Amino acid sequence: SDSLGPDGSAKGVGVDQELISSVPSWNPTFVERNYTDAEATYCRSQPCPASSFAARWAGKEAVFKSLGVQSKGAAAGMKDIEILPNESGVPSVTLHGEAKAAAEQNGINRVLISLSHSETVAIAFAQAS
Amino acid sequence: SDSLGPDGSAKGVGVDQELISSVPSWNPTFVERNYTDAEATYCRSQPCPASSFAARWAGKEAVFKSLGVQSKGAAAGMKDIEILPNESGVPSVTLHGEAKAAAEQNGINRVLISLSHSETVAIAFAQAS
Amino acid sequence: SDSLGPDGSAKGVGVDQELISSVPSWNPTFVERNYTDAEATYCRSQPCPASSFAARWAGKEAVFKSLGVQSKGAAAGMKDIEILPNESGVPSVTLHGEAKAAAEQNGINRVLISLSHSETVAIAFAQAS
Repeated sequence: SDSLGPDGSAKGVGVDQELISSVPSWNPTFVERNYTDAEATYCRSQPCPASSFAARWAGKEAVFKSLGVQSKGAAAGMKDIEILPNESGVPSVTLHGEAKAAAEQNGINRVLISLSHSETVAIAFAQAS
Repeated sequence: SDSLGPDGSAKGVGVDQELISSVPSWNPTFVERNYTDAEATYCRSQPCPASSFAARWAGKEAVFKSLGVQSKGAAAGMKDIEILPNESGVPSVTLHGEAKAAAEQNGINRVLISLSHSETVAIAFAQAS
Repeated sequence: SDSLGPDGSAKGVGVDQELISSVPSWNPTFVERNYTDAEATYCRSQPCPASSFAARWAGKEAVFKSLGVQSKGAAAGMKDIEILPNESGVPSVTLHGEAKAAAEQNGINRVLISLSHSETVAIAFAQAS
């Protein structure tokens, strides 16, 4: 595709914000559908689990946008976008299933992510290259 | 310039946030001056036109910052920075006029953009390479 | 490290947001500990110094995240991350001390930054390559 850059350059970026109160992480069905077991365990171990779930949700949305594929809303398979701290504590993205396939189709090898939350709002930025 | 990176690497980034209520998209003169016809048509077709106009405004500001040129405030020629969905629905930047000239002068070939809005705030991120 | 990209590509990104009211720039000890003299002089020369200090604080946090090193909280040496406008007025990052050493260790040659603030919130985005 002529929208892809040279090797190593960014192919897409994504930004997202979420009100922490709008992410229903108190709902086990929502968590089960959208977070991997490792993500849920990590978020529940944090000082404020609701904030961690919301930041990760914003992160998944930002990653999705960075992949440059058509949004499918609630059907987007957010569980296929896994965000966990690496050994240095830096949030790192692993793609599974349809998200992984979409990335490969668009020549994307790597997605960088950063998360931030205040008391009320979570924001995330992703860059796919 | 020694501030430019190697080919393909980012040359500038830009972030911006706007209160949706602070972008006067109800004002035809403001819209005419700052949005292309295609942008205005697109925003008015969206479920919440005010949010779309505001997100695009934040996007134009973020693109402007990413170009690394001196801010000219209201005179910056925001209409020269056009943000429209591509065939996949991904927001894409086209530069015209002075913005295009500034990009070329700084060796910028491409600007990636992402937009997000909550009920009250629009944010945008741009990356120029 | 296999987490590093090819030359010129991004190695890390960082996003941060801060409530302007939560950054105690009225406190000379806080400013002296976290800002260089040039930063403090610049922020105090701006129309709204509190907003400039807060945007710069968000910027320092974002840069820190982009370096991919373990957070050390208040001990992170925020003064080692200096953000000042370049000759075009574009915010530019200079690293000193431990931040510089961490960047070199991770093969990072350059950090791009963008700052934004509304009346209440400052946000920042950083990209390390």
